[in-house]
Amino acid sequence: MMDSDFDGDTLHEECGVFGIFGHPDAAAVTALGLHALQHRGQEAVGIVSYDGAKFHAEKGLGLVGDNFSDAAVIARLPGAAAIGHVRYATTGETALRNVQPLFAELHGGGFAVAHNGNLTNALTLRRQLVQEGAICQSTSDTEVILHLVARSRRGRFIDRFIDALQRLEGAYSFVGLTNKKLIGARDPLGIRPLVLGQLDGRYILASETCALDIIGARFVRDIENGEVVVISEEGIESIKPFPDQPMRPCIFEYIYFARPDSIVHGRNVYEVRKRMGEQLAREAPASADVVVPVPDSGVPAAIGYAQACNIPYELGIIRNHYVGRTFIQPTQSVREIGVRMKHSANRGVVAGRRIVLVDDSIVRGTTSVKIVQMMRDAGATEVHFRIASPPIAHPDYYGIDTPERDKLLAATHSLEEMRAYIGADSLAFLSVDGIYRAVGYEGRDTARPQFTDHCFTGDYPTPLTDISGEAPRQLSMLAEAG
Amino acid sequence: MMDSDFDGDTLHEECGVFGIFGHPDAAAVTALGLHALQHRGQEAVGIVSYDGAKFHAEKGLGLVGDNFSDAAVIARLPGAAAIGHVRYATTGETALRNVQPLFAELHGGGFAVAHNGNLTNALTLRRQLVQEGAICQSTSDTEVILHLVARSRRGRFIDRFIDALQRLEGAYSFVGLTNKKLIGARDPLGIRPLVLGQLDGRYILASETCALDIIGARFVRDIENGEVVVISEEGIESIKPFPDQPMRPCIFEYIYFARPDSIVHGRNVYEVRKRMGEQLAREAPASADVVVPVPDSGVPAAIGYAQACNIPYELGIIRNHYVGRTFIQPTQSVREIGVRMKHSANRGVVAGRRIVLVDDSIVRGTTSVKIVQMMRDAGATEVHFRIASPPIAHPDYYGIDTPERDKLLAATHSLEEMRAYIGADSLAFLSVDGIYRAVGYEGRDTARPQFTDHCFTGDYPTPLTDISGEAPRQLSMLAEAG
Amino acid sequence: MMDSDFDGDTLHEECGVFGIFGHPDAAAVTALGLHALQHRGQEAVGIVSYDGAKFHAEKGLGLVGDNFSDAAVIARLPGAAAIGHVRYATTGETALRNVQPLFAELHGGGFAVAHNGNLTNALTLRRQLVQEGAICQSTSDTEVILHLVARSRRGRFIDRFIDALQRLEGAYSFVGLTNKKLIGARDPLGIRPLVLGQLDGRYILASETCALDIIGARFVRDIENGEVVVISEEGIESIKPFPDQPMRPCIFEYIYFARPDSIVHGRNVYEVRKRMGEQLAREAPASADVVVPVPDSGVPAAIGYAQACNIPYELGIIRNHYVGRTFIQPTQSVREIGVRMKHSANRGVVAGRRIVLVDDSIVRGTTSVKIVQMMRDAGATEVHFRIASPPIAHPDYYGIDTPERDKLLAATHSLEEMRAYIGADSLAFLSVDGIYRAVGYEGRDTARPQFTDHCFTGDYPTPLTDISGEAPRQLSMLAEAG
Amino acid sequence: MMDSDFDGDTLHEECGVFGIFGHPDAAAVTALGLHALQHRGQEAVGIVSYDGAKFHAEKGLGLVGDNFSDAAVIARLPGAAAIGHVRYATTGETALRNVQPLFAELHGGGFAVAHNGNLTNALTLRRQLVQEGAICQSTSDTEVILHLVARSRRGRFIDRFIDALQRLEGAYSFVGLTNKKLIGARDPLGIRPLVLGQLDGRYILASETCALDIIGARFVRDIENGEVVVISEEGIESIKPFPDQPMRPCIFEYIYFARPDSIVHGRNVYEVRKRMGEQLAREAPASADVVVPVPDSGVPAAIGYAQACNIPYELGIIRNHYVGRTFIQPTQSVREIGVRMKHSANRGVVAGRRIVLVDDSIVRGTTSVKIVQMMRDAGATEVHFRIASPPIAHPDYYGIDTPERDKLLAATHSLEEMRAYIGADSLAFLSVDGIYRAVGYEGRDTARPQFTDHCFTGDYPTPLTDISGEAPRQLSMLAEAG
Repeated sequence: MMDSDFDGDTLHEECGVFGIFGHPDAAAVTALGLHALQHRGQEAVGIVSYDGAKFHAEKGLGLVGDNFSDAAVIARLPGAAAIGHVRYATTGETALRNVQPLFAELHGGGFAVAHNGNLTNALTLRRQLVQEGAICQSTSDTEVILHLVARSRRGRFIDRFIDALQRLEGAYSFVGLTNKKLIGARDPLGIRPLVLGQLDGRYILASETCALDIIGARFVRDIENGEVVVISEEGIESIKPFPDQPMRPCIFEYIYFARPDSIVHGRNVYEVRKRMGEQLAREAPASADVVVPVPDSGVPAAIGYAQACNIPYELGIIRNHYVGRTFIQPTQSVREIGVRMKHSANRGVVAGRRIVLVDDSIVRGTTSVKIVQMMRDAGATEVHFRIASPPIAHPDYYGIDTPERDKLLAATHSLEEMRAYIGADSLAFLSVDGIYRAVGYEGRDTARPQFTDHCFTGDYPTPLTDISGEAPRQLSMLAEAG
Repeated sequence: MMDSDFDGDTLHEECGVFGIFGHPDAAAVTALGLHALQHRGQEAVGIVSYDGAKFHAEKGLGLVGDNFSDAAVIARLPGAAAIGHVRYATTGETALRNVQPLFAELHGGGFAVAHNGNLTNALTLRRQLVQEGAICQSTSDTEVILHLVARSRRGRFIDRFIDALQRLEGAYSFVGLTNKKLIGARDPLGIRPLVLGQLDGRYILASETCALDIIGARFVRDIENGEVVVISEEGIESIKPFPDQPMRPCIFEYIYFARPDSIVHGRNVYEVRKRMGEQLAREAPASADVVVPVPDSGVPAAIGYAQACNIPYELGIIRNHYVGRTFIQPTQSVREIGVRMKHSANRGVVAGRRIVLVDDSIVRGTTSVKIVQMMRDAGATEVHFRIASPPIAHPDYYGIDTPERDKLLAATHSLEEMRAYIGADSLAFLSVDGIYRAVGYEGRDTARPQFTDHCFTGDYPTPLTDISGEAPRQLSMLAEAG
Repeated sequence: MMDSDFDGDTLHEECGVFGIFGHPDAAAVTALGLHALQHRGQEAVGIVSYDGAKFHAEKGLGLVGDNFSDAAVIARLPGAAAIGHVRYATTGETALRNVQPLFAELHGGGFAVAHNGNLTNALTLRRQLVQEGAICQSTSDTEVILHLVARSRRGRFIDRFIDALQRLEGAYSFVGLTNKKLIGARDPLGIRPLVLGQLDGRYILASETCALDIIGARFVRDIENGEVVVISEEGIESIKPFPDQPMRPCIFEYIYFARPDSIVHGRNVYEVRKRMGEQLAREAPASADVVVPVPDSGVPAAIGYAQACNIPYELGIIRNHYVGRTFIQPTQSVREIGVRMKHSANRGVVAGRRIVLVDDSIVRGTTSVKIVQMMRDAGATEVHFRIASPPIAHPDYYGIDTPERDKLLAATHSLEEMRAYIGADSLAFLSVDGIYRAVGYEGRDTARPQFTDHCFTGDYPTPLTDISGEAPRQLSMLAEAG
Repeated sequence: MMDSDFDGDTLHEECGVFGIFGHPDAAAVTALGLHALQHRGQEAVGIVSYDGAKFHAEKGLGLVGDNFSDAAVIARLPGAAAIGHVRYATTGETALRNVQPLFAELHGGGFAVAHNGNLTNALTLRRQLVQEGAICQSTSDTEVILHLVARSRRGRFIDRFIDALQRLEGAYSFVGLTNKKLIGARDPLGIRPLVLGQLDGRYILASETCALDIIGARFVRDIENGEVVVISEEGIESIKPFPDQPMRPCIFEYIYFARPDSIVHGRNVYEVRKRMGEQLAREAPASADVVVPVPDSGVPAAIGYAQACNIPYELGIIRNHYVGRTFIQPTQSVREIGVRMKHSANRGVVAGRRIVLVDDSIVRGTTSVKIVQMMRDAGATEVHFRIASPPIAHPDYYGIDTPERDKLLAATHSLEEMRAYIGADSLAFLSVDGIYRAVGYEGRDTARPQFTDHCFTGDYPTPLTDISGEAPRQLSMLAEAG
């Protein structure tokens, strides 16, 4: 899909996390790391540091650069340990009190935590907590981990933290900070990513390797599924509090979320996307003059597609990087601007040509309709639409903001109906097995799938406790601004 | 003292509260009421409304007019019930999360609360709560009431609220809002004020009667000491959960805090202040040409003093209402600007005259030094300083922001030392009995003092549990901005 | 009238000016001086400094303290010479480009100028200038002086400046700054004030003496009517380019505009206002229990009135200093808030009493109606309204923002009609002769009036060239924001 | 070069212009057109409209979307005719008063004008104007056109405008608006672009065709060099006030400035850039594994290069679109972040490979050094740098913001010195003839060059009057903020 959001026709990752321990400029380094993770969340950003005596927090709506490029802000975050978070809002309103890291003073000391993922039993836990007298101040699902730690009867902090983890369902990659330790934790299936890095001997946790690259840090390894790491002045300790089981990370990191230069589970994301395009060319070739990527998400797959079928790769759509906002639409004589605010047809490439349009995925399909029309308006004689992933027919509950099921085009339309709706001359998707092949497998291991691919298959890897309940996304009776 | 704060040489009331039930424009009415209470707190303001389904909150730093004069803001506060709060920060940082009303979703529904006063066992309670697994999000002492209500084992909400009140020490006037009721509560001694009003049959709670006057509401009665009132669609119910004891309100409401046009415990504040001036003239007359008030706090007492001793009342000091900020001080040839930013000598009145300078109180005395010097620079031949209250020798712990004891001039200086420090030709304070006489009594009833006057006498009417403990004002390990 | 503006029922002075030459902190000193002149204009403020090589300008909307209390702003205004301006907008929109001082680079060097007053032939001059090819960038009447200087054929700068002055009509007190000189100029009648001061040997020009007092400068003398002073490193030079004629300053500086502690033409403003009250008590005594000032403008006259007729002076109206904005008016059951936002009746003083209400002037009368009603609502048994100046029946064209003539209550109502409209039991104004007596004369010298008092008498002291023309206040075809 | 500006190592176009006549939503259409021209200037934006009676202006710093996406702003620009401007600051400070369109009320009516280009005799004209008594309010070179029109002795407006044009030297594409007409003018050589479009019969002027595409308007023709067009209710009139001569547009529009989808002088910019890459492959092939574009400016040339030499095109550098600001650099252990804030190496593509890095141009070369180093750090075994234009050895004076000559790498270094400085294994530039070939010619016609290519050749097509003078870029003695 296009990266720009028309009619909600896109997917959003909700979060990126970062943490560093033992660095004299911990907050400045964290700001840089979060900047490299900005593609994982643009709505809010926060950093908490610890200076040996006190925790310090700065949070804001908008981009990392908007909030943390001022030296005065960084100066308000002293200390050698820091964690940070960028966020797109899946659960909870965009109020400042929901911006992570969340913090609580527990018996024994403060605890800050940042979360990438989504808990599928957060509402159920929250109801129990409130009945027991807990007061929830945010509407974030992440807050329950704080309460569970606060109420654990275990002794050591790390035992209380693990006690809390064991009550959670769903997807989580946590980075946490206490007055002694930096903690990382990944859910038993490893649905969302978390990597360990090192910079001059200091440990770093981050959602993706691109956050290590920006600061020149070295990639050490992925945090394993179900692993808890505890980083302190004594070094790093790994704990495995869950029964052993195979990892099952979310396949969408490869398709759309991770940055092309990141290494996810040992594979370069750009290369995987190119191979998706190559595989797609094999599964669904097209007789055409040029391959045109839908920018920017379709670019790597289009390069792969073009190389595999030896059709020239050309920029038939130009992206305007300068906007987000909606302009006032003139009431007269100007046809609906829509996608033209951010994209325009490059008539010189498109006119009189048969084109293969390559995109990474289709969500609602409303943008695809406009892109195809834009190509035809620019003189394309044929438009063959190729999608480098299978049809999305099921919503995500693990930290990707998908529309309700009945808004997903593939949930309600056959392939031919989709083609007709989009207005393309032909339409094809990469097969489920094809996507596993692009990653390097023979195909999907149906007995023990190597990834979670529920958006394509409906095969959800965890219980969905909250989903059966009522009022699924209402976490608060309080509507608050500011 | 001067209303403007030089060198911290002033007292601050921390709060004003307001609530209304059953009015279609509850939030707009609350904003007006808070505006009339603005003298009780200028640092932050908040309103919570309930619209029958959901609570809504808007908070901001600064004045009521800065935050609630925009129709869009009021529109975000729908509903027929609302409570509000203006605040000067005694306890807790000026972060938005500390701005009241505070809100919690409890088992059974939401609860918002606003507080005027100060709890003298808040830290002790907080420590217990955190040990039990509670998570405190604000650094406000008010938050403990939310946790105590949330954890009460009683059944009905009002019983849980009273259960919580019974664990509190210190001074409080609360207004609270649930999804069914507006609640008012005043501590067992009635230290801080709270009045009941009515507007077209709808009940109102407010810190002072001036908040009723602005909206044309009728004063019904004072809430009594130790009384809890519950206002709902069924009308008003009064509960007395504490053993009966005589009221002992804070005398400083008359001296400095309440607005001159308010009626406090049946007495017009302006008239009381004038009588303090009259009584002062009787106790400490001066041979002078003019009586000059220190604006604006000394004005009523100066009028009373002038009338009682038949010396002309003249504006010898002019107040500049246009500022607050500190300007850059030129490095050369301009003598320290200090008080001249907000006040200037009216040379035409002062030059060549013996003046009686009348103020309401002296805190640190640093401003008094400058005022006396300013009068001398303007040509006053004699300056007789008269203070319409007794020497302040003890800090307050009930919601007035006083300096530490060793910063109070009267705690460390004799009368003659004070005179010498201030540089006046003579200095006199109103006696403790004199102040009771101005209010209408024969004098202070030493067995059962009619007011709490601890700042003058050191006679604190409640336990001071937190004061004996360590780290008295540190409620949080988290330093947070914005 | 009340200082707060309800229904436009007030007068506004448009400007205050300040300049200093030879001081190392010229901009900081200018900011302080302008702060003391803030009562002369609160809408915009600007300072221009000259550092020996370059002019620097900083301007902003709002108060001096809002714009010039930041050290970084003052640091952007280096140099030993500076001029500044505070402004209420009479002519020209409130756009930043209209904020003075205005600046132009002329042949020979830069020239900055700030103006208090109003030119009555600015539009006529502007039309001529545009016809000759001049481009006017502001809509301020002040800009014409820049063009006239730029186009003068004379040689020396000061000759070109005087050449320009000789084409102006109306009222002006200018301070100007070139790369060599600080210049002051006052119109031939001296309608608006301008004083000369000295601080450690450096010369200062200011609208009022209160701007000297705040920085501890010494008052030297008034600039004379028709005088131009040129201050440079060589000292001060006085030029008299106009035929000699008696001074005729605006009487309204005494009545309303000047700060009470200023010395205007040798007289303390507070004392003059008190004597206006005394004179009013003689001319129009009242049988009453208390004298109540309309705050703050009526305070000095009320003190004088009370002393002269020996009726107690009491604060029957309390002013709320905390607002300016208009709050949302509840739609139901709350009577119109109007003046209660800024003033409230002090029922304890007013109830059951016959009151004399003393104000300085009546403009439209709309506020007076509400004040009288507020007194009656608070229980006053009789309200006798006394105005310490004559009826305002004619608009001003010299720098005071008066309503159109037909909006002035006294222009369209007899005394009895005014009384009935306002709802007072009696109404009386100070006589024209009375006001001259308060200033120290026997009465008005009808042959050669000592002041310009055109608002009362219609006797305008200069031609009103623009007034006979069309489109009197439209200076620009461009509506511009920002 | 990279689009992002490290160490000032980039070129900036100063402006884009747009105008429309006769459209009911003229301002909204203009905002959309300017948005499509945003790549021509991101520092400031302004629109002036005329509603039949009055001109309206709105201006702001920053992007079109930041300033003109609010309906209230567009509503303040009523009328059926509008012109607009986006700007990067070449001449004049970034003060609001310099933001175009500029406006003046002339004798006969208002005139607004927006300018793309740079006048090479603006300072000289300005000095003359000031000597004649003109007052310049902006520091923009564009203001002189207003003064020249204002002072012209001719009768009709258009004659005065042409009179003014005939005194100008340098490059200009003007759009102007009077109360009757929309005017376009292009300098005698047609250095900067200007096109004519039509939307439902209404005429449009714009810098590039992409501004027509966004609103669905039809491209009519280029405005010719030396042509003035006058659009009114009577239609369009073309005037040719200059002696006929061949057009000589700036070649840099093709190389860097114009948007890839624009048609400039009949050629699709993307196609021209691809052909520059192809030509470069022919002139300077490389033995390598992958072709890597420097994003985004090098992308089309890299595609062309890759196709011409049949080496795979791969994204070896990933661009982070989320920033502009400079973050705080950690003081320890993090190597200089530099370009990594906006770009990162895609190690998966680069490691172990011989790469051809393709960029459009080199200015200072500082960024190229970092990019090459980044490629080596990522494991590239060889880095062959190819530049799809000739070496830039001469500054521009026609509206492109180039560094001083001694800062241009090619002005002071031989090819081999450049290669060594940049650290590449080989370095090659496209030849001057090569660039003409890419555009479609046999080569440069040295007798009558088809383009102005002074940055490469030093062959300036107009006099450079101001350049010989002193203080070349100082237009004002006034330093002003805000």
